[in-house]
Order: sequence, then C-alpha cells, then structure tokens
Amino acid sequence: MIEVSPIRYENGQFEILDQTQLPGTEAWLTMETREDIWDAIHALKVRGAPAIGVAAAYGMWIAAKNSSADSREAFYEACREHGDYLCSSRPTAVNLSWAVKRMLRLVKTWNPDAEGLAGASWEAQRTALLDRMLQEAVAVQKEDEEACRRMGEYGLRLLSPGMGILTHCNAGALATAKYGTCLAPIHLGQEKGYGFHVFADETRPLLQGARLTCWELMKSGVDTTLICDNMAATVMKKGWIDAVVVGCDRMAANGDGANKIGTSGVAILAKEFDIPFYMYVPTSTIDLDTETGDEIRIECRDGEEIYQMWYEKDMAPAGVKTFNPAFDVTSHENITAVITEKGIVRPPYKENLAAIAAAPARDGE
Amino acid sequence: MIEVSPIRYENGQFEILDQTQLPGTEAWLTMETREDIWDAIHALKVRGAPAIGVAAAYGMWIAAKNSSADSREAFYEACREHGDYLCSSRPTAVNLSWAVKRMLRLVKTWNPDAEGLAGASWEAQRTALLDRMLQEAVAVQKEDEEACRRMGEYGLRLLSPGMGILTHCNAGALATAKYGTCLAPIHLGQEKGYGFHVFADETRPLLQGARLTCWELMKSGVDTTLICDNMAATVMKKGWIDAVVVGCDRMAANGDGANKIGTSGVAILAKEFDIPFYMYVPTSTIDLDTETGDEIRIECRDGEEIYQMWYEKDMAPAGVKTFNPAFDVTSHENITAVITEKGIVRPPYKENLAAIAAAPARDGE
Repeated sequence: MIEVSPIRYENGQFEILDQTQLPGTEAWLTMETREDIWDAIHALKVRGAPAIGVAAAYGMWIAAKNSSADSREAFYEACREHGDYLCSSRPTAVNLSWAVKRMLRLVKTWNPDAEGLAGASWEAQRTALLDRMLQEAVAVQKEDEEACRRMGEYGLRLLSPGMGILTHCNAGALATAKYGTCLAPIHLGQEKGYGFHVFADETRPLLQGARLTCWELMKSGVDTTLICDNMAATVMKKGWIDAVVVGCDRMAANGDGANKIGTSGVAILAKEFDIPFYMYVPTSTIDLDTETGDEIRIECRDGEEIYQMWYEKDMAPAGVKTFNPAFDVTSHENITAVITEKGIVRPPYKENLAAIAAAPARDGE
Repeated sequence: MIEVSPIRYENGQFEILDQTQLPGTEAWLTMETREDIWDAIHALKVRGAPAIGVAAAYGMWIAAKNSSADSREAFYEACREHGDYLCSSRPTAVNLSWAVKRMLRLVKTWNPDAEGLAGASWEAQRTALLDRMLQEAVAVQKEDEEACRRMGEYGLRLLSPGMGILTHCNAGALATAKYGTCLAPIHLGQEKGYGFHVFADETRPLLQGARLTCWELMKSGVDTTLICDNMAATVMKKGWIDAVVVGCDRMAANGDGANKIGTSGVAILAKEFDIPFYMYVPTSTIDLDTETGDEIRIECRDGEEIYQMWYEKDMAPAGVKTFNPAFDVTSHENITAVITEKGIVRPPYKENLAAIAAAPARDGE
C-alpha cells in the first residue's frame, strides 16, 4: 500500500512533510499555530493546489482552536480574520481560498439545535463546533484522496503492466492529499504489481521531477529513472516509453492545457514518436470560461532561478538576459485523452469537457 | 571585430583561457610545460575538438623546446614520447591525435638541406626545427580559424538581419580557434550589424549553453537570452525563432548527425513549428564509413552529473537510477541544411555529403 502523503493528522496533531528539505531529509513539521500553516504554504513546504487546500482547511481549525472568542459571533469574526490571514500566504492559489470559504460556511451555518446543544454553554458549543471543523478538514482531505484514487483507477485503464511511462514535473502524491493526479495510476499500478518503468524529467529550473517525483515514486517502490528534460526524445526514440502522463494547472474549454514549463514540448515529441499523451485534470481545473489556451496568462519568474538557484556559484554571465515562464500550454491536438475524477474524456474536447464538468460525481465505481 | 578565442600565442607565450572558470572569471593560463597542456586538455580547461587540436600542436612545440635531445634522432624519439603523453590526456579526442601526428610528420620529414643548414651544428638545426614546429602550430590555428570563418560566411547566407536564432550547447568560438562552427555566422553577423536575437538553451547537465555560449555571445555584443532546454517549444511557438543553429560531433553518410544531448528534440520541435534547422559540420566530421546514425555509439556518463554536479546538495534521492547520454542523433529528415567549410549541403544527403567530402577546399571565396 502506498505510504506517500505530504500531510497527516494523527493523535490530535496536524503535520506537514517539509518538501523544501526533500529529497535529502524527510522532516515532519507539527502545525501548532496559524503562523505555522501560513509559513508552510508561503515557503512551499507544502505545495500543489489540492495539498494547499487541505492544509488551509486544517489551518482554519488550528487557528480557531487557538483563539479565545467569547461568543458565536466573535468566533465567526475571528475565523474570517484567520481566513484572510491564511489566504495571504499564497494569494493566487485557488484551492486555498476555496478551502477557507468552505470552513467559513461551516462555521456560519453550524446549528447547535441540530446537535442537541441549543441550551448548552458557549464553551460546550465551541468544543462541538471545533470538533465539527476538524471533521470538515478531514473530509476535505478524504475527498481529495478519493478524487485522486478515482483518477488513478481511470488512468490505470489506459496503461498495461510493464509499460514504460514518462512524466514531467510532480503531479504526484506530494501535491495532493494522497496518490496525486497523474502519478495516481503509477502508485495504484505499483500496488497491483504492474511493474511500470517510470522516466522522470528533472523539470528545470525548479527540479520538481528530480527532487519530488523521484522521491515519492522510489518511496512507493516504483522503478524510476531520472533524466534531464532534454533526454525525453532519446528515451522515446529508444522505444522505452509507452505513455506520457502529466498534470494540469488549468484547462481551457477547447482542451488546451496549461502545465509546468516543458510539458508542451514533451507532447510534441510524444506525437512524433506515436506515444499517447495523457493529461490528468480534476474537473475543478477545467475552466469553461476560458475559450482556448491563448487566453491563459503565463507567469514569468525571475531568471535567477535558471542560473543562480541551487548552484554554488552563478552558472551564466552576470547581467545575462533570461526568459523564464513557469508554465506552457499544450495544444489540445497533442493530448490523447484527459483523465478526470469523473472519467476519461476524449476529443472532441469542446463538447466532452463541458459534458463531464456538468456530470454529477459518480459514487462507488 | 570579434575578440573571442580560447587560445592565443603572444610574445613567445602560448596561453589558454580556462573555460572551467567561466563565466565568472576570465583567467588566461600560460602553458610552460607539456604537463600544463596535458592538464588543460584533461581538465577541460580547453575543450571542443578543433581547440584541443590547436592546443596539442602548440603542446608538441612546448614539449620539444623543453627537452634536451642531443641529436636529430633523439629529438624525434622524444617528440614521439611527447605525443603519446599528450594523447593520453583525452584518448577519444580525434583532433588531438590528428594534431600530434601532423607535428610528428613535420619533425620526421624536416630537411636541414632545404633550409641551408646541411652542415650546421645540431644546436643550430634544433633551433630552426623548433621554429618550424611553432610555425606549424600557428598554421593549425590559422587553418581552423579560416575553416570557421568560411562556415560563418556560408551560414550567414541562410540568415537575415534581425532574425531570432536558437542554439543548443556551445559550438562556438570557445570550442575552436576562433568564430566557432554554428556560432560563426552569429559572430560574423554581429560584425556586420545584423542584430540577431539569440536564444541559448542552457544545455543540461553540463550547462555549456549557460556557461559558455552566453559568455562568448555577450562578449561579442550579441543580444542573448538564456532559457532552460524545456522552454525551446515556447519561444518557437511565440514566433521568436526564425532558425536553429547547432554543431555536430559526427555525421553519418546519410546525414544523421550526432550532437550534444537534446539536439534531436530541438530538431523535432523546429519541424513542428516550421523553423529551419541548420547543422554546422566541418567536412572532417563527416564519417562516410558510418552508414546511418544508428551505428554511432553514444557515450553514457555518470548520473551524478544530473543531480550532484554544480549543486550545493544532492537534488535527487540517494541511489536514484539515471540515464545520462552525452549525445543524441538528429535524423537527417529533420535537418534543413548542413553547413561545411566547403559550402552548404542540402538533401539528398547521401549523394551530396559524399560529393562535398571529396571536393577540394576552395580558396579565396
């Protein structure tokens, strides 16, 4: 059974695996204050949209537990302030504000009558409400685990035992509550004895592939080979790759998918070598209001990430110009199938993505 | 006028630019002994097949100058031993043994009669022979400069002012006596005010693009932008690239070209975006005895280059498997034209490469 998860709740403690210390050190940090959570998200100790959402949900519980509101109203106001504070740790992370809003809605709509606590003291109510908040944080975690498990099961239908699989960046367990998105079928396949051979692009400049994907796949027992990004064409040409699996940060209505820089190039190479290219896209990541990938704004980051970060000394001349986009857009034409937690989507994407986004979540499949 | 050259002979001294200290420090090392030369080649202070050849030619002169043979025969024997010694610095470098053989042939065939020294003392003959060896080393250097200048001029015919040009690795002035192979048209274009915009792939894992190409192009005043290898598809898609120029380590008779790892992927991307892909191949690099690229053996290097070298700490888990080929083979189908010092070669390559290899060198074009 796969053991990799970047977060855990045990014996009343919420803990986060410090991903900035990977792969060298596996350090679990106990989150005792809202400041601990803020720092963990801000400093990328926890990363990946779903994992950040889970951390924020627990963060709301921790913050509420530590504050001493003397009434239901004051408690709610305190929670709103906690939410604003936590959201400031990484303002662009959609799952962060989503999780905060969900916890706030719970606090607002919680009904002491329904709990048989209508006449109880505020202290008794507070204890019960905090307990309910904890349950909600656990639910956020479990729901993400479940969505990832489903993506893994759907994805596994597209793969066969013994396959060679190339992946880029880390859309893995470390970015979610468990399993990951595009790495979910790999972890599940490992449990089932599929014996995949995974090739992990190191993923410059931030090296998520080398640092995180290799770490979690090796932890899971998967046969994993690290390559530089520029070696993808070579392993494909050698016939070592039967499928490419990648995550997605945002998919437009036409199926164009933004993901970590380098993904679009891998997709072109996969097409050249007739290798299926699968993008793993939770339906929450499908943005039907964005018509095509051309409308997706791409964040450009500091060039120092290319030639200073990680290194003992500068690896390019002082004052060199750089171009350092964090993401690129893979054309829908180069995506063989989109895997969501509700099922597998094939072209034509415009129609089929809209349909799956509107479809109800399926239970018990 | 371009000032970049990795070697220089001035005031009786042969000096090498220590490329291991680039881009941070521009250190010129005076070569005083054969051990200095051996170490410079072995430790990659001088690199690139043509530049190594030039260093070896000067190395033979330096070694002979320092040794005290008391007869013509002893002098030749000493030179043979110097040659064996220098060749052991990087056994697979073809230009190294080529330059050593050329210097040995000179020593063997040198005729004191023809120099009017038939009756002169061995000491007088020795002085004249050493002088002749120095002239030969200078000739090796000048011939390479000339071949590169020609490649630059032919290559420039394929480019227009203001173009955006992508390059991979460093087939530049630093790898030759001057100008480089694929960077020769860039340097020449810069002299002519072409105003190219060059995008340099950093070229993992050894970062020749970041460390060397950026350094020499900036030195030459060229507008240069550093990108990670996995960003090539993005700059192409943006329409910023009008041509790709790369070097070649060995070209098979059918036009398949081995070059630095990552080159073949760039060629596939260039094809996808309809961008011409030019490979710069001195005719000495065309190997007509090798039928196709499949026959070219590719060196695989230590995986530590991927996750340890340059870094402050390991960037992948201990014990990770790696695949680290130093080169890949670009299919002739993805090469728009081959630029040699004798002219431009277009498909069909099988016929046209054989013809250009057999053609005489052209003078004064």
